[in-house]
Amino acid sequence: MEYSRFETEMQVRPDDIDMNQHVHNSRYFDYVLAARYDQMEKHYGFPMEKFLAHKFAWVISKAIIEYKRPLGLGDHFVVNTGIKEMLPKGCIVSFHINSKKTGKLCCDGEFYYTMISMETGRGETIPEWIREHYSI
Amino acid sequence: MEYSRFETEMQVRPDDIDMNQHVHNSRYFDYVLAARYDQMEKHYGFPMEKFLAHKFAWVISKAIIEYKRPLGLGDHFVVNTGIKEMLPKGCIVSFHINSKKTGKLCCDGEFYYTMISMETGRGETIPEWIREHYSI
Amino acid sequence: MEYSRFETEMQVRPDDIDMNQHVHNSRYFDYVLAARYDQMEKHYGFPMEKFLAHKFAWVISKAIIEYKRPLGLGDHFVVNTGIKEMLPKGCIVSFHINSKKTGKLCCDGEFYYTMISMETGRGETIPEWIREHYSI
Amino acid sequence: MEYSRFETEMQVRPDDIDMNQHVHNSRYFDYVLAARYDQMEKHYGFPMEKFLAHKFAWVISKAIIEYKRPLGLGDHFVVNTGIKEMLPKGCIVSFHINSKKTGKLCCDGEFYYTMISMETGRGETIPEWIREHYSI
Repeated sequence: MEYSRFETEMQVRPDDIDMNQHVHNSRYFDYVLAARYDQMEKHYGFPMEKFLAHKFAWVISKAIIEYKRPLGLGDHFVVNTGIKEMLPKGCIVSFHINSKKTGKLCCDGEFYYTMISMETGRGETIPEWIREHYSI
Repeated sequence: MEYSRFETEMQVRPDDIDMNQHVHNSRYFDYVLAARYDQMEKHYGFPMEKFLAHKFAWVISKAIIEYKRPLGLGDHFVVNTGIKEMLPKGCIVSFHINSKKTGKLCCDGEFYYTMISMETGRGETIPEWIREHYSI
Repeated sequence: MEYSRFETEMQVRPDDIDMNQHVHNSRYFDYVLAARYDQMEKHYGFPMEKFLAHKFAWVISKAIIEYKRPLGLGDHFVVNTGIKEMLPKGCIVSFHINSKKTGKLCCDGEFYYTMISMETGRGETIPEWIREHYSI
Repeated sequence: MEYSRFETEMQVRPDDIDMNQHVHNSRYFDYVLAARYDQMEKHYGFPMEKFLAHKFAWVISKAIIEYKRPLGLGDHFVVNTGIKEMLPKGCIVSFHINSKKTGKLCCDGEFYYTMISMETGRGETIPEWIREHYSI
C-alpha cells in the first residue's frame, strides 16, 4: 500500500545554528517532529491532543538520518513526511527536508514510531479506528 | 523620539515544550532573537548578513523578561519589538509576545544590545549610517 | 536575613555554543535552572521530585541577566545561587556564573520564583514547613 | 582491527527534559557529540581546537539511534564511544549510553563522520598523521 505524503513549511531560527554556522545536526530531528505534529492535525484529522486524550503516545524507537546539505541562518525549508509502513504496534515514517530556495535535498531518513499506552508505558497493538486515520 | 514597532508571527515547536507542558522559559528569549533577525531584514532593510559583512555584531549585555501567561504546544504567537532607546554604543529593544488565539500578553521585557567590532571584540560607537537604518 | 549560597560546577556542552562561537545567551538561563535543581537536592534537603509530589511547582515570573564575559566550548564554570529575599508567595534567587579557569564573572542576575499549586495553577502562600527548608 | 573505547560521564539537565517527562530524543545526539569532544581531548590527545586549527572539521553524514529506555530528570549516565571502522575520508563511531543508576542500556547507535577541509567544504582523505591519532 502507498500512503499519502504531506508537506510542512518552516524557517530556521537563529537558535538552531551551531558553531559551524549551520543548523545543528540534532535540530533536523526536531523539524521532522514539528512537521508530524502539524500534519497529524491538518492532514490526518487526528491532532496529538486527541491522541493523548486516549492515553496513547507515540515514542520513537529508532531514527536514521542522512545529511546531504546543511541549512543556514534564516533558510526556509519544506519537511515532507509520510508513512512508509504500518506495523502491528507502530509505523515507519520516512521524511526528507528540502531547501525552499534551491529545492535541493538537505537530509532524509526514517523514524520508527511505537504506540504506547501512557498507563502501562508498554507498546500496544494499534486499534483499528486509529489505524484508519493513518491509512490515507 | 518614538521608534517604529514591528511584528513577527511564529508558532511553538514541540521541542520548545518542557516538562511543565509549556514553552520552556529560555525559549521566549530565542523567539525575540528570531523576531529581530526577521525584522532587521524585512523592516530595517539591514539583514544580519550585511551587518556581519561589515565586521560588526550585536551582543546582548542585559536581558529582562517578565512572564505573564505560558504558551503551549502548537500555539501561534506574535512577537512585537521596537527600539526603546538608542545609546552611543548600543540600543535598548523592548518586546512583548502575545498569543495569537487569545490576544493576551504572554511575556514582555527588554534586551540591551551592544554593537561590537568582530575584530576587537569591543563595543563600538555606532556609525551614523547604521544609526539611520534603525531611526525609523 | 542572610541566606546561604551554594555552588554547582558544570561544563559547557558543544550544543550550547551558537553561531558566535560562544555559549548561546539563553543557555545561561538553563545553567542556573540546572544548578537550582542540583542544590535543592544536595543543600536544601528538598529535591524537586518531593516538591512536585506535594503538587507544588516553582514558576519563574521574572528573570534579569547581565552578560559580562562569554563562556566558550568545553569551559568549566561555577554557578553560585542563593535566596536574596523570601516573599509571601515566592522568592528572589540571585546568581552569578564564573569561569572555572579564570575565576572571572561571566554573568549574574536574579530569578523571581512564584510557588504555584499544580491543581489550580495559581500562586500559593508558601507553607511554613516549606519556608523552613529554604531558610538556611 | 579493534579500536579502543572510551567513557564519559554526564548528567541530564532540566532543559533536556521534554513534554513526556523524559530526555528529548534529539538530546541523546548531543550527549554523544559532547562525549566525543571530551574524548578527543582526554584520550586521543587531539582536542577539537587543534583539529580546527588545521582547517579540518568533522561533519556527520549519517546517524542511526535506537532508543531502548529513556533517561529522566537528574539521571547520571555514561556515554561509551569508539571507532568501529576507519574509512578513507571518515570513520564510523559506535556508541551506547547507559544509566549510571541501573547500568541498563538507554540507547545505542552509530554516527558516520566525514572529515572536511574548512576551506573547500569538501571531504578530504584523512592524512596519515591524523589517522594515527585515532588508531588506538
